[in-house]
Amino acid sequence: MSARVGTIHGVGLGPGAADLLSVRADRLVRGASHVAYFRKAGRPGQARRIVEGMLRPDAIELAMEYPVTTEIPLSDPRYNACLAAFYADCSTRLTALAQTGADVVVLCEGDPFFYGSFMHLHARLSGVVPVAVVPGITGMAGAWTATDVPITWGDDVLTVAMATLPEDELVRRIRDTDALVVMKIGRNLAKLRRAVATAGRAEAAWLVEHAAMPGQKVTRLAEADSVTPYFSILLIHGQGRRP
Amino acid sequence: MSARVGTIHGVGLGPGAADLLSVRADRLVRGASHVAYFRKAGRPGQARRIVEGMLRPDAIELAMEYPVTTEIPLSDPRYNACLAAFYADCSTRLTALAQTGADVVVLCEGDPFFYGSFMHLHARLSGVVPVAVVPGITGMAGAWTATDVPITWGDDVLTVAMATLPEDELVRRIRDTDALVVMKIGRNLAKLRRAVATAGRAEAAWLVEHAAMPGQKVTRLAEADSVTPYFSILLIHGQGRRP
Ligand SMILES: C[S@@+](CC[C@H](N)C(=O)[O-])C[C@H]1O[C@@H](n2cnc3c(N)ncnc32)[C@H](O)[C@@H]1O
Ligand SMILES: C[S@@+](CC[C@H](N)C(=O)[O-])C[C@H]1O[C@@H](n2cnc3c(N)ncnc32)[C@H](O)[C@@H]1O
Repeated sequence: MSARVGTIHGVGLGPGAADLLSVRADRLVRGASHVAYFRKAGRPGQARRIVEGMLRPDAIELAMEYPVTTEIPLSDPRYNACLAAFYADCSTRLTALAQTGADVVVLCEGDPFFYGSFMHLHARLSGVVPVAVVPGITGMAGAWTATDVPITWGDDVLTVAMATLPEDELVRRIRDTDALVVMKIGRNLAKLRRAVATAGRAEAAWLVEHAAMPGQKVTRLAEADSVTPYFSILLIHGQGRRP
Repeated sequence: MSARVGTIHGVGLGPGAADLLSVRADRLVRGASHVAYFRKAGRPGQARRIVEGMLRPDAIELAMEYPVTTEIPLSDPRYNACLAAFYADCSTRLTALAQTGADVVVLCEGDPFFYGSFMHLHARLSGVVPVAVVPGITGMAGAWTATDVPITWGDDVLTVAMATLPEDELVRRIRDTDALVVMKIGRNLAKLRRAVATAGRAEAAWLVEHAAMPGQKVTRLAEADSVTPYFSILLIHGQGRRP
């Protein structure tokens, strides 16, 4: 007798507003018997917050809490080893669940395949149990919509870069693009600001915090505070051809 | 007596599947009394096709047909003038509708502010009548989901470029990025193919046709035909840091 194996669904939730889930994601989330999501220990978790009030009352929740890594520098090989062990453990738990026949919805901010943590599960689960991915509206689409200005025109080049890159690399990228999106800003704001200024684009840059979430804030970079939350994105809009 | 002025909604429909509209977009489309969309003369139009079966039976449809420009080369100033007149005319018609008090839903493929035609209306309507934009899942997110491989990891740089760029510029962009998305391929396929080969990335490139639409097709660029439809996207997946 071979039991049915469940599917692990990586479901993109979009930038934050509950009605920016896709119809497919909305249906999966509301119908889910098992829901898993990442969060920092002791925090509610942004993905979980987006679906507040949408889950079945009997839904079983699996919070996957990132190991505390603040004492280990990113360059230390133990940092990667610690995260690898964490993702392996999460994948083992999800596989075990799927093998009992349960479908599991993994909640993902934005789009699952765009710089998402779910990708580390996907890499370990693919070929082991059935995995399905539902694309989502990215955080950056939420951000440029919040500015009420289109991001790219005609044959503009768009560069998406992480603020974790070295400062000189950021300068080079900012100089060599029409439109720009920078994510993962947080503690890198001062460095990013210097890079934008060095590249001569300070006047063109916008900072969008909590796009499509409560407390959404759009500021010119020149007027922004020196502190920015994890959910913030820097934008420079393209100026391409427009009839 | 001042009549209520309607709102022009630029609504992102996502890459193609009806259940990849956002819940907000789905609600607006199904409730709309007036629906407008771009199309080539004599064609149904992709945006209109996505919402087939979703419109109110009494919905009034406004098809905005692109002027035939095939005889005018893109470099000729008359090309731009012809398009500018077209967008001005569409904007006048939408403004007149809004001033009768009607809300109008403008159907947009993917995300409205990401290389979208709606942007040319938005630029003309903003400040004249109320305009609201609903972000959408981009065609590229549909495309990378179709490959079942994440597009960006860690601090990968993603470059989005149009195949309309000159060949040497494409080569330079492909050489200088981790992950790549190329759109607007169509007649530029042969040029793009040469550029990818010159940059030494032919083995890494994928062509996705009709992502999330009927007839979706994912092919290695090396194995792709020499003809590709308008709705096709080239991808090179990033290989960044992954624990
Ligand atoms: C690990 S990445 C995940 C990206 C996500 N998968 C997406 O598609 O947008 C996290 C970064 O995304 C950005 N981000 C995602 N959603 C956002 C939002 N609603 N507002 C502002 N920034 C957001 C922030 O820059 C944050 O540091
Ligand atoms: C004028 S741009 C519009 C982009 C759209 N606003 C978006 O967010 O994806 C048209 C180009 O988008 C790409 N595209 C959009 N949707 C697609 C899909 N479902 N499959 C393949 N390509 C798509 C194609 O490269 C096409 O040439």
